[in-house]
Amino acid sequence: MKKIAIGIDIGGTNTAFGAVDEEGCVCAESNLSTRRYPLLDDYPDYVADLTAAIRTLLGSLPFPFETAGIGIGAPNGNYRTGAIEQPVNLWKFRPGEIDRDERRRIFPLADELSAAFDGIPVRMTNDANASTIGEMIFGNARGMRDFIVVTLGTGLGSGFVANGELVCGHDGFAGELGHVVVEPGGRCCGCGRRGCLETYVSATGICRTALELMAELNEPSTLRGIAPQELDARMISEAAEAGDPIAVECFRRTGERLGRALADAVTITSPEAILLFGGLAKAGAKLFDPTRAAMEAHMMYPFRNKVKLLPSGIRATNAAIPGAAALIWKELRG
Amino acid sequence: MKKIAIGIDIGGTNTAFGAVDEEGCVCAESNLSTRRYPLLDDYPDYVADLTAAIRTLLGSLPFPFETAGIGIGAPNGNYRTGAIEQPVNLWKFRPGEIDRDERRRIFPLADELSAAFDGIPVRMTNDANASTIGEMIFGNARGMRDFIVVTLGTGLGSGFVANGELVCGHDGFAGELGHVVVEPGGRCCGCGRRGCLETYVSATGICRTALELMAELNEPSTLRGIAPQELDARMISEAAEAGDPIAVECFRRTGERLGRALADAVTITSPEAILLFGGLAKAGAKLFDPTRAAMEAHMMYPFRNKVKLLPSGIRATNAAIPGAAALIWKELRG
Repeated sequence: MKKIAIGIDIGGTNTAFGAVDEEGCVCAESNLSTRRYPLLDDYPDYVADLTAAIRTLLGSLPFPFETAGIGIGAPNGNYRTGAIEQPVNLWKFRPGEIDRDERRRIFPLADELSAAFDGIPVRMTNDANASTIGEMIFGNARGMRDFIVVTLGTGLGSGFVANGELVCGHDGFAGELGHVVVEPGGRCCGCGRRGCLETYVSATGICRTALELMAELNEPSTLRGIAPQELDARMISEAAEAGDPIAVECFRRTGERLGRALADAVTITSPEAILLFGGLAKAGAKLFDPTRAAMEAHMMYPFRNKVKLLPSGIRATNAAIPGAAALIWKELRG
Repeated sequence: MKKIAIGIDIGGTNTAFGAVDEEGCVCAESNLSTRRYPLLDDYPDYVADLTAAIRTLLGSLPFPFETAGIGIGAPNGNYRTGAIEQPVNLWKFRPGEIDRDERRRIFPLADELSAAFDGIPVRMTNDANASTIGEMIFGNARGMRDFIVVTLGTGLGSGFVANGELVCGHDGFAGELGHVVVEPGGRCCGCGRRGCLETYVSATGICRTALELMAELNEPSTLRGIAPQELDARMISEAAEAGDPIAVECFRRTGERLGRALADAVTITSPEAILLFGGLAKAGAKLFDPTRAAMEAHMMYPFRNKVKLLPSGIRATNAAIPGAAALIWKELRG
């Protein structure tokens, strides 16, 4: 009988999930608005509605199957405990709530879904780590035992694999490359510190760089006609495609920052390859070329010209769904 | 019968080796001058003399024993291949040598020693990684599955353990924390680049900081009476002990640099503990206090006040010998 795993990708806006087979094909998918359940008190309803929606999806599959397990990628998802721990944008305290004890904001979703589905295996990790396992099982890191995945979305996430295993760390939260400080005293970061890599290299980071460049340089640019709050990474990408000098320099500096940070990461874990994943990575050569150039220029000699810089190899519309499901396939394959 | 493993620590000046039991006790030790074999052509003699010296040591043991294997810690020692690859200070080309093909400077010592000793297991890694395994088997990282060891000697070495396994990387050379760039365009490093951590945090790095401080500050200092080429880390440590303001500030800045770099390393691998090892670490609270303070001050919030900063737990005179032998005990224990 065909085996499937459920992959769930929990974002602040939307929860996407699907039934994924052992080859990484998404047989069916659906979603639930995460935003409809904003408060701590809404969480039980979220779990009940997600459970029902998964049952509906499974009921719609037009072939006989066996469910091997559920994999979850979630912000602050802890691989060690299976809980979403103190997520910044999910299930917040009610405004004016008096008991703001953060220990109340630990959401043991893996155990809860396992109980709802007759004790099947449920594994959780953060979204970047789920993409990392996805690349190892279905994508461009197949057969690799030492690699890094960098996800370039609103922020910068990452997953490190060493000796064929995800580096989760003692507390389950390893892999926060986006919060390595690359510019002491630099741009304010959502984490409360300054100069983190993701404030420069991410969809939001590249917009900040565009503003900085419009302040610094005199070149004309179509970006000067866009209000900063309307500006997004895609506009910068399109302007760069059209030869806009500010937008072109914007990608060059973003790649330069990323390349330097990757050279440092390589000295620590010495990967076979680094995969760039997510919206900003779709800019292709505009990002990859300056990143590769800066990485090699700043690389320590034993590692030079060895490390491949690759795009994602996952072709699903929502790559996070097979990524989350891969947590289960990885475990079953040992 | 008592089992022993031979631990070998190869340095540019001296090769120290000993017979180590399963508890990490060094039953007997000896050494061979590495410096007496400076050239590529001297390498076969080095292997022959080392083999003979190990036989003599084994012959001197006053109890019946079984040799489980040989562990080697060596600069540029590659865990994957068992070879010392292009070491900077060992077995160099003869001055004026015409064929300077670096591929000739790969020394497969693990295979050679295994052949000399009836095919017993021989494992090799670099000196910092050997110390790391030593801490895991015999020292302050016993029972830990995720930790970092930083060795503060002439340079700064490191070993990362994730999921209970040493992170060796794709090419066997992972763990070069000393060559993360902490100051772009900063101090010249032996690796040919600028601003590497070890140019600030190491026995030589702290001497450079002392010179910088004597230039920057007006405070009197006993260090002002010492010629720069005579200055060493121990003098700075003794001066700091005596309250010398330049020397005290020197340790503070060294700890500050190290603490910031450790905070970044923690965001990547999220260790349970970081162990500081080697000469400079013996300065104790003078180094540990500012390091811990800077690490916590620059730590991303999920990791704050979680990571232990510990001294080495290996009490042998030459900790590198049990460290190298631990490569064998680690493997036998699985």
